Amino acid sequence: MFELCYHAAPPQGSYIDIKLFARFSIGDETKTVKGFYDGNGIYKIRFLPQTPGKYSWQVSGIIQDSGEDFCEDCSEQGVIRAVGTHFEDANGNVFRPFGTTVYALPHQKLSLISQTIQTLQRAPFNKVRYCIFPKYYDYNRDEPELFPFEREGDRWNVHRPCIAFWQRLESVILQLADSRIQSDLIMFHAYDKWGFSGLTMQENFVYLDYVLRRFSAFPFVWWSLANEFDLLFARTLQDWYALERFIFDNDVFGHLLSVHNCFSFYDHHREAISHCSVQSGQIESAAKFIQDYAKPVIFDECGYEGNVAQDWGNMSGFALVNSFWTIIAQGAYCTHGETFVSDDEILWWSKGGVFKGESVPRLAFLKGIVDGFPSYILPWQTDPLEGIDPEQRKLIMDTPFRKLIREMPKRQQESCFVRDAKFMGRCGDDVFLQYLGRHCCAELEWRLPEDKRYEIHVVDVWEMTDKIACRNICGKVTIPLPGKEGIAVIAYRRE
Amino acid sequence: MFELCYHAAPPQGSYIDIKLFARFSIGDETKTVKGFYDGNGIYKIRFLPQTPGKYSWQVSGIIQDSGEDFCEDCSEQGVIRAVGTHFEDANGNVFRPFGTTVYALPHQKLSLISQTIQTLQRAPFNKVRYCIFPKYYDYNRDEPELFPFEREGDRWNVHRPCIAFWQRLESVILQLADSRIQSDLIMFHAYDKWGFSGLTMQENFVYLDYVLRRFSAFPFVWWSLANEFDLLFARTLQDWYALERFIFDNDVFGHLLSVHNCFSFYDHHREAISHCSVQSGQIESAAKFIQDYAKPVIFDECGYEGNVAQDWGNMSGFALVNSFWTIIAQGAYCTHGETFVSDDEILWWSKGGVFKGESVPRLAFLKGIVDGFPSYILPWQTDPLEGIDPEQRKLIMDTPFRKLIREMPKRQQESCFVRDAKFMGRCGDDVFLQYLGRHCCAELEWRLPEDKRYEIHVVDVWEMTDKIACRNICGKVTIPLPGKEGIAVIAYRRE
Repeated sequence: MFELCYHAAPPQGSYIDIKLFARFSIGDETKTVKGFYDGNGIYKIRFLPQTPGKYSWQVSGIIQDSGEDFCEDCSEQGVIRAVGTHFEDANGNVFRPFGTTVYALPHQKLSLISQTIQTLQRAPFNKVRYCIFPKYYDYNRDEPELFPFEREGDRWNVHRPCIAFWQRLESVILQLADSRIQSDLIMFHAYDKWGFSGLTMQENFVYLDYVLRRFSAFPFVWWSLANEFDLLFARTLQDWYALERFIFDNDVFGHLLSVHNCFSFYDHHREAISHCSVQSGQIESAAKFIQDYAKPVIFDECGYEGNVAQDWGNMSGFALVNSFWTIIAQGAYCTHGETFVSDDEILWWSKGGVFKGESVPRLAFLKGIVDGFPSYILPWQTDPLEGIDPEQRKLIMDTPFRKLIREMPKRQQESCFVRDAKFMGRCGDDVFLQYLGRHCCAELEWRLPEDKRYEIHVVDVWEMTDKIACRNICGKVTIPLPGKEGIAVIAYRRE
Repeated sequence: MFELCYHAAPPQGSYIDIKLFARFSIGDETKTVKGFYDGNGIYKIRFLPQTPGKYSWQVSGIIQDSGEDFCEDCSEQGVIRAVGTHFEDANGNVFRPFGTTVYALPHQKLSLISQTIQTLQRAPFNKVRYCIFPKYYDYNRDEPELFPFEREGDRWNVHRPCIAFWQRLESVILQLADSRIQSDLIMFHAYDKWGFSGLTMQENFVYLDYVLRRFSAFPFVWWSLANEFDLLFARTLQDWYALERFIFDNDVFGHLLSVHNCFSFYDHHREAISHCSVQSGQIESAAKFIQDYAKPVIFDECGYEGNVAQDWGNMSGFALVNSFWTIIAQGAYCTHGETFVSDDEILWWSKGGVFKGESVPRLAFLKGIVDGFPSYILPWQTDPLEGIDPEQRKLIMDTPFRKLIREMPKRQQESCFVRDAKFMGRCGDDVFLQYLGRHCCAELEWRLPEDKRYEIHVVDVWEMTDKIACRNICGKVTIPLPGKEGIAVIAYRRE
C-alpha cells in the first residue's frame, strides 16, 4: 500500500466529504482515489499498486501535488479475488478462506485485542469477520471506549469521524494483515443500542465513503456489507442495492463484497456480489449453493462451538469440525466461531481472547491437508447410472421405486436427502475426496480414472490421523474404513 | 391361551379354508373363532380369554364338541392395546415398546434362532419385528429350509400350508412370549425372490386366514400388515385397505395392527390402524406425528447402528441412542436394529445372532429410567410467550422478525426447525423430561409448577450416569449442565 501524507488546515464543514483526489497512472492505466482526513491537520491519500512498474500521481482538490515512484513487487499484496467458484490471490494462487468470527474485535480494550491477535497468530485462520459499528447483544453489553463518530445532541454527526476510533480499527486491520489474515469488515448490523443501525441512507453513504477513502487501498480487506442484512428492518432491498452499488462503484481496487443473511439468503446473483456469504445449517447443500450461484460459497455462520443456551451456539467441537469437512469436501468454505460461557464473559465469537474449544487444532489439521492440494475443490458429481444408455436410464427413472421417491412429501424427501447426501469433491483428476460425515461405513467403493494411478489415504478428522490405505490404484476400488464417524477418504494422483 | 385339539381325517380340498368353528361364551359375551389344521390329522381351535371366569364352548363344523372350563387369571396374558397415544397391557399398565428388528428370524437355522432368543433374553427389548415370508436382500440371500406353503408347479399352493414351517414360526413366537417379548409379525414385504410378494389378492386372504386362525389367540402378537407397504408395487391402496379390513374383521381378539412405510406414510388415521409404525429419519418430528394422528407412534425404522455402505445402516451407536432419547422424550417410541458386516454375514437386523454394537446397554439404561416413570410421556408443550396477553402476543407475532421467519424458504425453515427443535415430555405433573440431543448447553432454564417440589436429575445417556442436580425445586430453575452431547434432564415430583 502506497500512502501520500499532507499537512493542511482541518476541513471546513464535513470531515469526510472533502475535495481531495489523486490520479495514479501506470502506462495507459489510470485510477483516481479520494483522500481522507486523519485528524490533527493530516490528510492521507492511499493507493494500492496491483502491477509492478513506475507510477506517477497527480493530487488535486484542496491539496495540489504530483510525483512518481516505482513499485517493484506486488506479489505479496494480499488482495483476494473471486474466480469462478473459488478465490485466488494476486499471483493466481488458490486462496482457501479459513475464517473465524470475532464480531466486536475492534471495540475491546487494547490488551484484549492484543491477546486475540496473538491467539490468531498461532491459529489456522486467514480471515476474521468483525463489525465496524459496536455490537450490543448477549454476552456483549459493554460500552465501547470509542465510537466511529462524534455525538451531536441525540444524533451521530457522521461528518465528524472520531479519528481515534478509526485509527484503532486501522491498527487492528494492519496487525491482522501482518499475520496475513484478511479482515472481513462488516459495515452494518442490527445488534445496536447506540443508533448506528438507524442512520439515514444519506448518512450511510457518508459513512461508507469514509470507509472506502480510508481502507480501500488496504490489501487484506473484504467488504461484508452486512451481518444478517434481513434483521435491519428499516432497510429495504432497494436500500441494500444502493449501498452495494456505492461500494462497487467507489472501490477502485475491487475488494470482495458480500452480504450475509439471518434467514433468507441475499440475492448473491447480483453483479456486485463477489461470493455467497451465508448463514445456514444446510451444510449438506453446499454443492447445490455453488451450483445455484456459480460463485464461491462461504458458510460464514453454520453454528458455533460452545455451550450457550441458544442453539446456534452450542455445537460440540466434533459437530463444527464435521461441518467444516462436510462443506469443504463439496468445494465450499466454512467459518469458525466459539461461544463458551465463562465468568469473565469473554466469548471468542464476540470479544476474542483465547480458544476454549476442541475444534481449532482439528481445523488446522484440515487446513494442512487441503493446502497440500494442487488446486481448488469442485463438487465431484458421480452418476449412479453411469454407462447406462438413455433409453435404459429412462426406464429406471420411470420405475415405481423412483416414482415413489419423487412423490414423497417434500419434508420427508428433504430428510432423506440430508441423510443420504454425499460430500464429494475433486481437484480435476489430481485429488478425489469424500467425507463420510456421521456415516460409519466399513468400506467405500469408488470409481477412479482408469488411466492414472492413485494413492488413497484414510483420514480420521477428529483423531487427526492420515494413513495410506493403498497405493497404485486405478478404476474401481473398495477401500476398507474404520467404521466410525468423521472419516475422510482422499485419493492423490501419483502417476 | 386356551387350545382345543382334535384328531380327524385330513381336510379334503383346502387345508386352510376348513369348516371348523367354536363359540366361546362367558356370561352374555360370545366370541366365535375358527379352527385350523396342524397336519397329521390334528385340528386345533385356540381361544384367548380376556376376562377371568367360567367359559363354555361349542365346536361346530367338521368336528362337533362342547365343554366348559374356568379361567382364573388373565392378568399375565400379554395382549397390548393402544389407548390414546400410548399402549397398555391387560391390567391397564403402561406398555413401553422397546423393539428390535430381526427380519428373517424364523427362516434361520434352529441353532441361530436359539442363539438369537438367548441374546434377547439378556436384552432390554420387549418387541421383535420379523417377517412371516422369507426375505431376499443384501446379506440375506440364503434359501430357507422351510417355506410357508407347498409348491405346485411354478406356483405356491396357498391352500396347502407347509405345517413344519408354521410350527417353527409358532415355536419362535412362543419362545419370545416366554421371555415376555411381543412378536410384531410382518405379513407382507417386497424383498422376495420366491413369489410371495406376487400372490393374488385371493391368495393373500387365504394366507391371512391361516395366520389368524393359528395365531390370533396368541398373546404377545402384533400384526404388521407390511414392511414398506409402498414397495409392493403390484398392490393398490384399495388392496391394502381390503387386507387391513380382513384382519380387523377376523381377529376377534383385537391385536395391534399397523402398516410400515418406505417413503410416504400409510394413512394411520384409518380405523383399523392401532398405531403409527413409521420409517422416518425425522426424529425431531415425533411430537408432531403424535399430534397429527392422535395414536401411539413407533419409529420402527429410523436407521440402524452399523457399518454397511447403505446410509440407513451405518449410524454410530451414539446416533441410535440419540434417536431413542429424542423420540422417547417426545412421547413416541423407537425400534433398534444392527447392521454390522462380518465374515459370517450374520447381521442382527436380518438374521439375529449376537449384538456387535454399543447401543444396547445404553438402551437398557434408558428403559430402566422410563420404566420408573409413573405413567406414559406426553409432549411437553411450553409457550415462550406464556403469560403474555393476546393483544401483546399479536404484536409480537407481527414483528418483522417473526414475519421474516414465516417468509423463509420452506427448506431453510425446516433446517432451522430441525436445529432448534426441543425434545420435551412430561408425565402429567409427576415427571418432566428434556433431552438436549446434540446441543452442548452449560445450563438449562425450566419453569416447573410452583405448587409442587421436584428433584432434578442430569443424565448422561452415553456414559449412563444419572446424577441428582438439585432437590426441593419449584417454579423457575436454572440447571447447570456438563455442556456435552447426549444430556437429558429429568424432574421427578417428590411432594
